[in-house]
Amino acid sequence: MDVKAALLSLAAMFMTAPAAWTPAGTLHHHQNPRELLSSIHLLRPLSGSGGRPAGGVTCASWQFGVETHNVREWTTVPRSCESYVGNYMLGDRYRQDSAVVAAEAAAYAEGLQLGNDGKDAWVFDIDETSLSILPYYARHGFGVEPYNATSSNEWVDLGIAPALPESLKLYRKLLSLGFKVVFLTGRPEERRNITVVNLKRAGFKKWEKLLLRGEGMDGTAVAFKSSERAKLVETGFRIVGNIGDQWSDILGSPEGARTFKLPDPMYYIS
Amino acid sequence: MDVKAALLSLAAMFMTAPAAWTPAGTLHHHQNPRELLSSIHLLRPLSGSGGRPAGGVTCASWQFGVETHNVREWTTVPRSCESYVGNYMLGDRYRQDSAVVAAEAAAYAEGLQLGNDGKDAWVFDIDETSLSILPYYARHGFGVEPYNATSSNEWVDLGIAPALPESLKLYRKLLSLGFKVVFLTGRPEERRNITVVNLKRAGFKKWEKLLLRGEGMDGTAVAFKSSERAKLVETGFRIVGNIGDQWSDILGSPEGARTFKLPDPMYYIS
Repeated sequence: MDVKAALLSLAAMFMTAPAAWTPAGTLHHHQNPRELLSSIHLLRPLSGSGGRPAGGVTCASWQFGVETHNVREWTTVPRSCESYVGNYMLGDRYRQDSAVVAAEAAAYAEGLQLGNDGKDAWVFDIDETSLSILPYYARHGFGVEPYNATSSNEWVDLGIAPALPESLKLYRKLLSLGFKVVFLTGRPEERRNITVVNLKRAGFKKWEKLLLRGEGMDGTAVAFKSSERAKLVETGFRIVGNIGDQWSDILGSPEGARTFKLPDPMYYIS
Repeated sequence: MDVKAALLSLAAMFMTAPAAWTPAGTLHHHQNPRELLSSIHLLRPLSGSGGRPAGGVTCASWQFGVETHNVREWTTVPRSCESYVGNYMLGDRYRQDSAVVAAEAAAYAEGLQLGNDGKDAWVFDIDETSLSILPYYARHGFGVEPYNATSSNEWVDLGIAPALPESLKLYRKLLSLGFKVVFLTGRPEERRNITVVNLKRAGFKKWEKLLLRGEGMDGTAVAFKSSERAKLVETGFRIVGNIGDQWSDILGSPEGARTFKLPDPMYYIS
């Protein structure tokens, strides 16, 4: 993919979620969309043979391993795969892969018979599922750089993450069908306010619950999220669907009657 | 990929598993390897717009949906994806994707501490995991044609399926580390003899158990295989690993301590 195509693709993504890019007083000047677009494609040069995927396989096969949950507990994208992942994320493939998942989820939902009690719940993860942190990652090596809590939290706190368009479409479909949406995120409780602002700004206007990680809820995402889903079930909800970009979003009982895995080759949360 | 590359690729696959291609009296003349190689690349022309993946997505994204278990209960490969799947299967990607899985499995196995009781078991599925039915599928549209039990069983009964080279390598590694291999397959009990012949011919010389589907074991593959794994555990085995090409090989308690999903965009077994 050339630079022009990458820019057009990213621009198209933003245009489908304009609410997220409304100028806001909190915008850091680096976050000006136009400036972002002009710098986002500067993939760094490969640095020798360091950071090759294990076994000398291609980046596409490394990605297969990651998305199928064969490759686990990885900390960073192999350095030699930065441009591959960047092109994937900014190009059409990421959107198409997401569209397949959302279409399956929508078709499944349409075939369900809802109860009369308003207790049919669908769980959405937030980052890389409902909201996209891609604009941040595009400036930080698409997952090649080690996770930096300070800089990524600073970006999250801007509250300008755009919606993932396919997920937003699915969200609207589910609401129209009568499902209750529950957001379940590893974001900490202290980011509730900015998360509410960002969700609404991106087009996610209503929900049944917004569950964040509270004080003392340590441990893995699998443990935290399973525990929260168990509480949902205890309070009478039927989790008919569960969608996330991480396997840790959708593994661990009660998983939900059916789970959906969105693509994410940029980071891994266990 | 051009025809020459496809042939070289397939030839290379066979060369790494020569035992499977030892001339045998039972070979049907159509199964002569040279003749097979000369016809295997004849991908049929696309037939209009019928059989497109749902939502008009690309074949690559359909494949993503299949391999991540988002797309389920599909019966045939979308007709428009025949040449895509054919090129994938005959080209380097299939082998590379398999290599990633096998490498992860080997690395995991090497990190395990075995018990002293010889009860550390690793479960292998057979078709598209240990043995490759690709030579048959290559003549039958790579999954585009509806499943034909008669013709596929005829081919299986030849007993000439080659090993999947990456899986054979993993199998040998596991044996050398001291794990017990258990083959668990949806093939029916009446194909035990030809399955034994084929496994040995392809290089799988020994195993702890070879579990096939017996009389009356109806129901889904998930139910059958989970039940067989439960019996293994009841008899004292620890299932440390479980590898298959279908999600139905690796879902359902007890799954095994860790599961591995090999690629297979040609067919789906629930």
